[in-house]
Amino acid sequence: MDVVAVPSRADSALTERQDVAPPGGDALSALVSPLEDDLMACNRAIVARMESPVQLIPQLAAHIVAAGGKRLRPLLTLASARLCGYQGDRHVKLAACVEFIHTATLLHDDVVDESLLRRGLASANAVFGNQASVLVGDFLFARAFQLMVEDGSLVVLRILSQAAATIAEGEVLQLVTQNDLSTSEARYLEVIEGKTAALFAAACEVGAVVADRPQAEAAALAQFGMNLGIAFQLVDDALDYAADQALLGKTIGDDFREGKMTLPVLLAYQAGDAADRDFWHRTIETSEQSGADLDRALHLMQRYGAIDATVERARGFAAAAKQALGRFPDSPLRRALLAVADYTVSRGR
Amino acid sequence: MDVVAVPSRADSALTERQDVAPPGGDALSALVSPLEDDLMACNRAIVARMESPVQLIPQLAAHIVAAGGKRLRPLLTLASARLCGYQGDRHVKLAACVEFIHTATLLHDDVVDESLLRRGLASANAVFGNQASVLVGDFLFARAFQLMVEDGSLVVLRILSQAAATIAEGEVLQLVTQNDLSTSEARYLEVIEGKTAALFAAACEVGAVVADRPQAEAAALAQFGMNLGIAFQLVDDALDYAADQALLGKTIGDDFREGKMTLPVLLAYQAGDAADRDFWHRTIETSEQSGADLDRALHLMQRYGAIDATVERARGFAAAAKQALGRFPDSPLRRALLAVADYTVSRGR
Repeated sequence: MDVVAVPSRADSALTERQDVAPPGGDALSALVSPLEDDLMACNRAIVARMESPVQLIPQLAAHIVAAGGKRLRPLLTLASARLCGYQGDRHVKLAACVEFIHTATLLHDDVVDESLLRRGLASANAVFGNQASVLVGDFLFARAFQLMVEDGSLVVLRILSQAAATIAEGEVLQLVTQNDLSTSEARYLEVIEGKTAALFAAACEVGAVVADRPQAEAAALAQFGMNLGIAFQLVDDALDYAADQALLGKTIGDDFREGKMTLPVLLAYQAGDAADRDFWHRTIETSEQSGADLDRALHLMQRYGAIDATVERARGFAAAAKQALGRFPDSPLRRALLAVADYTVSRGR
Repeated sequence: MDVVAVPSRADSALTERQDVAPPGGDALSALVSPLEDDLMACNRAIVARMESPVQLIPQLAAHIVAAGGKRLRPLLTLASARLCGYQGDRHVKLAACVEFIHTATLLHDDVVDESLLRRGLASANAVFGNQASVLVGDFLFARAFQLMVEDGSLVVLRILSQAAATIAEGEVLQLVTQNDLSTSEARYLEVIEGKTAALFAAACEVGAVVADRPQAEAAALAQFGMNLGIAFQLVDDALDYAADQALLGKTIGDDFREGKMTLPVLLAYQAGDAADRDFWHRTIETSEQSGADLDRALHLMQRYGAIDATVERARGFAAAAKQALGRFPDSPLRRALLAVADYTVSRGR
């Protein structure tokens, strides 16, 4: 039945929400839109392959895998493959692998960080306990390798097993630099390259590999992913001090409470006077924190422009990511990937 | 300088110790002896490949990998390859893979169980913390896959990625059956097949695969490993209630305190009267334990012959393991493997 559409209050509220929505939402939709079928196939593969006769495994995995998330990493695999002109469907299973590896590291991260929130919901460890989170993470990791073996490419296996080792190295390095104000910016970059950007890079490279493109194209896509991943993590670290909690979907100030050495702290510490440095030593190095300390930390970051400087660094890496796509001819997919690089910097702001 | 040897008290004490030493020591030496060069090469590979620019990784890994252990699983790979007449050296790297996967699961197990002792020493999580143990476990797991990719056999990758997934499933199932006295013996067997025997089976099968032997031989060796692994875990579970702590190298009664549903508990519970069952419900299901409870548990197991029955089950699986080697002609290595099956049952008794 055709009716004349009269906007209701709810409709106009929705419009308003769209108006104030970050441009990122559009950037991601622009990437999803040409890949919609691929992404649906990937989601089906994810759900099908997290199955196990041990019920707790799909239950816990569903809590984190199916609970949303942007599917950014598998999208990168799907997009890279199609950007390289790939016509088959191997990339779907490999995108699922990438998401499984990512999910396994999230589960273990939340145990390591003792996080209670993930993507705005109770984290898996908060609901199912640390033990189950560790073991289901192990399962998803093993399952990712089973999927790669089914695919049968030793090149893909090499790229993703290397990425998995690098992720673990980055995470351990992060643990080592925790509470250590003498951490250099270079060391911090090493941490985020490992824990975050290595999988972005591998996700993109794998797309070129299935398309059987020359090594230079695979390397360019890996370069795109690496720079994008660094930008992404830099902004994540900025948002941990600057975001709206509802928008961020995690507890604000988590990094501060854990004494994590992220760039905002590093920059505010380095710019600070003696009193400021005493504050950072007490709160970050000796972990003595009281209720008002997060506010003071935010205030110091504001004063010294640490958040803006962090986002500025991210902008540089996003620009490098875009540059890495230079060798690919203009296409809707390439434009969507360029927009994702911009979104990475602008999201949540 | 030649002197006439006069046995000192210390010497005769040593001789006595050897007299009462379990035959297992000899069985393992008999297996190691023809594989000495292989095992040394494997140990070198292990040390070389747990390297990382992130110092904490080799430090923590050395704590557990280099701290001894019997290297039983890599020995099975080495022995299986040689039993199949293999002349190359691919089995060395793959034996190191098997040990890395095993070590990764030990690190995660100790976090899950909150164990303070491992092989008679402080566990890695007790020394380095749970966070580092989880992450270094992840690293070793990834490194194992990197080694397999270097080897280049998709068959090996299939076998070991499947084993890794099965181990995780077994561990999760163990978590699910914890504190649950209604766990059946079949369900318990499913747990130990997964968490322990699957890797024994894979370790043996991989040996046949590198030797390029017919599928039936690989299957027979997998069968040997599977049955051996079940026997091994059954005895482990018996020893948790029956062993000399110094000999066992772990805290006695750990399984009891954790409410783990192992066969000794299961059998004692099923055989018990109403008062016994109340005891088990209180101690295992509701985890209310006081100082004297472990003694009472041991007493009940004694009364109902639960330990002996568990070892008897192990004997059956060890016999099946030996039978699986029927297709291989007599040789010193085959005899050594048969002796290992016997040792598995007799160790620590």
